[in-house]
Amino acid sequence: MTQVSRRRLLGIAGAGVALAGAGAAAGAGIDHALSAPEAQAAPEIVPFHGEHQAGIVTPAQEHLHFAALDVTTKDRAKLVSLLRKWTDAARRMTAGQEVVQGGAVGGAGAAPPGDTGEALDLPAASLTLTIGFGPSLFDDRFGLAGKRPAALADLPAFPKDNLDPARSGGDLCIQACANDPQVAVHAVRNLVRIGFGTTEVRWSQLGFGRSASTSTSQVTPRNLFGFKDGTNNLKAEDPAALAQHVWVAPGDGPDWMAGGSYLVARRIRMHIETWDRTSLDEQERIVGRAKGTGAPLGQSAEFDPVDLHVGGADGEPLIATDAHIRLASAENLNGARILRRGYNFVDGSDGVGHLEAGLFFICFNRDPRTQFVPMQKALSAKDSMMEYVEHTGSALFAVPPGVTETGYWGESLFA
Amino acid sequence: MTQVSRRRLLGIAGAGVALAGAGAAAGAGIDHALSAPEAQAAPEIVPFHGEHQAGIVTPAQEHLHFAALDVTTKDRAKLVSLLRKWTDAARRMTAGQEVVQGGAVGGAGAAPPGDTGEALDLPAASLTLTIGFGPSLFDDRFGLAGKRPAALADLPAFPKDNLDPARSGGDLCIQACANDPQVAVHAVRNLVRIGFGTTEVRWSQLGFGRSASTSTSQVTPRNLFGFKDGTNNLKAEDPAALAQHVWVAPGDGPDWMAGGSYLVARRIRMHIETWDRTSLDEQERIVGRAKGTGAPLGQSAEFDPVDLHVGGADGEPLIATDAHIRLASAENLNGARILRRGYNFVDGSDGVGHLEAGLFFICFNRDPRTQFVPMQKALSAKDSMMEYVEHTGSALFAVPPGVTETGYWGESLFA
Ligand code: HEM
Ligand code: HEM
Repeated sequence: MTQVSRRRLLGIAGAGVALAGAGAAAGAGIDHALSAPEAQAAPEIVPFHGEHQAGIVTPAQEHLHFAALDVTTKDRAKLVSLLRKWTDAARRMTAGQEVVQGGAVGGAGAAPPGDTGEALDLPAASLTLTIGFGPSLFDDRFGLAGKRPAALADLPAFPKDNLDPARSGGDLCIQACANDPQVAVHAVRNLVRIGFGTTEVRWSQLGFGRSASTSTSQVTPRNLFGFKDGTNNLKAEDPAALAQHVWVAPGDGPDWMAGGSYLVARRIRMHIETWDRTSLDEQERIVGRAKGTGAPLGQSAEFDPVDLHVGGADGEPLIATDAHIRLASAENLNGARILRRGYNFVDGSDGVGHLEAGLFFICFNRDPRTQFVPMQKALSAKDSMMEYVEHTGSALFAVPPGVTETGYWGESLFA
Repeated sequence: MTQVSRRRLLGIAGAGVALAGAGAAAGAGIDHALSAPEAQAAPEIVPFHGEHQAGIVTPAQEHLHFAALDVTTKDRAKLVSLLRKWTDAARRMTAGQEVVQGGAVGGAGAAPPGDTGEALDLPAASLTLTIGFGPSLFDDRFGLAGKRPAALADLPAFPKDNLDPARSGGDLCIQACANDPQVAVHAVRNLVRIGFGTTEVRWSQLGFGRSASTSTSQVTPRNLFGFKDGTNNLKAEDPAALAQHVWVAPGDGPDWMAGGSYLVARRIRMHIETWDRTSLDEQERIVGRAKGTGAPLGQSAEFDPVDLHVGGADGEPLIATDAHIRLASAENLNGARILRRGYNFVDGSDGVGHLEAGLFFICFNRDPRTQFVPMQKALSAKDSMMEYVEHTGSALFAVPPGVTETGYWGESLFA
């Protein structure tokens, strides 16, 4: 790859989408000539419709824009109408099209354009848009109190939590993931725009570098502690495990959630300066894996199974009793597992000389009460990594099932 | 491109670098097998040494991490020693290597690893590192007062400035640009780490999507107003114009700056919600160009020359008297031009329901007093775009010339 080829490739793929996609972007100002083979480049489209929402077991893309919103109306019909409009927009944008036909250069007279335009020359870039409903949506505003799943119980306070209310909670969430940050940002911005008068942004977070692989087809990325992250994650290629740990089954709770999942988001500040002064041995002891290869301590290759019982020369277990991967393991948690799908972040600096860096942790699970909550309880109480991290934001959302070709986000809840 | 190919490609290119690069990353935990043709993928290395620093006319990469630092010592020798260490680290990292040999998995006993590790499996990704010296460095701490260039005069206050001191100024800056954000973040973090005890981070900014092309080889990107940005920029392919407008010439001021340039950074918040409610006509009137094609009003294609004198049916000029491209044009400014090299940003939300989005404007010029300053004066006083933007941060740096194979950043200033 030369320095310029990626965006060129994207630009061309984008045009390919436009050509294939019933003129979506065709009238939208793409003015560079394309040769036939270039125009056939792969469009990078992740299907929007399906049994489950995309963006959960979709192989984690490179970039995240996550937004939590509050609903500012008490009018249920307005909220449902917004969900319909959002679904239409999401259908188009995930296919690499503008929000509305003729979008950015449309809008006659005083009407503003229907699309904000910054993704005009860009392809779908594997954009996925995933919606979730927070516990606060199930108050008395919209008549949803009786439909609140028991699994959507407010998260308990965990030891050492240092949560900022301005980075926590939300009536709704939109998770946008794409291989181009501008595509993810464009999607959130346009949904926020459509929501004007009905919703407003409560908080939002950009992330990069995906901190956990979610598919065996991916090279395991590294988080900002420099360790491979996602090795022992649930993977898209293991549908049985996903059925057991990620997807809500009929009978788990209210019918409307069948095929859905629960998303937990935790903004975790990492004290990288302190971490960076720690020895390699200590870092590996804390995680329970080798930093270079990612192999569990006592094993030699990244994907070797973790054995929590291997003893060292001193008789102590090689994977320490307070190691992250021991405490988070299924073996330690009655078989509980989660699908991790977080992203690294750097939000400028903290005002006292350090970078404000960390992990925007996202996970999906079938029932947080028996999966995320006991796991985070174990970690926050005992994990030696806790000395280097600080949970500064927290949110929980019920992620409804996938959308049919004619349906809308949350239809099973509102219909 | 499939959803996973980019990082795979990067990973492979990275391994290619390692194989070519005297084992830099070879002992560093890359444990996936490579076939011969894959290992020969282009390494994406931008040369670090040269007459000028890289990262100025280098075709703008996709991602930015910009950090402004303050020096916390008064010991000149310590500062010079840091500049030497930084240069060595920059040489290695821009070549796709770790900060020090054996970095992330080195460090015996209690010594922390020499590299933080999160870029271990990643290639150079066209990383450039560019250093600058702020006006405050030339106070009485380091005996540099007599070497301060007249062109490094503090920027004046501009009408409507709303500058946050916590996002402005700095003794030093590091501009890291790369096609992978994790590579840019890793580089800044490791330089900050090396500076521990000598410098601390004053502010830092992430950017994406490059808001201006700087090479004719690039498709013009779009900023968050949805317009093509960089069409009429100075381009790497026009050395005569660069010599006239970007590079400090011998005799322009103190010798140590010959071959350098001046960097102006402005964090410009864009009120995208207001912009998005404006009609297409109005948006195009404000910019002076068509949104779709990027063509100047009155012309038909993006790169058609701007003609400020074409009149409309009503006798008024088609490019309005308060249009951005008129006020910023060389014709309006006695021939002054600048090299724009900014990035889009979204820094979460603003706490009152909106996204905190904008343009992290960066430009390079030979003398800000006759280029950036009159330009920004004209824009801040008259540009109709000012209604939609707010300058929230500002900084100015003298960017010294390039580094020789054995030299160090700023050698001409300190030697
Ligand atoms: C900044 C915070 C965190 C960092 C840096 C981190 C890092 C890591 C690393 C390096 C691994 C080993 C590689 C792998 O199997 O993916 C790992 C595993 C894991 N982490 Fe974390 N993690 C963090 C927070 C959390 C949180 C909040 C949870 C859940 C409450 C969690 C749950 C897990 C689980 C379930 C595993 C797999 C354990 C096993 O091998 O069975 N992590 N993490
Ligand atoms: C958020 C703020 C800004 C936005 C959205 C913006 C956007 C644009 C756009 C869309 C163009 C036309 C395309 C092109 O030729 O690149 C342009 C041109 C230009 N802008 Fe800006 N700009 C901003 C701030 C500034 C600032 C602060 C300066 C310098 C003080 C500046 C200097 C220029 C120059 C010199 C041109 C080329 C004008 C010509 O055609 O001769 N811009 N800008």
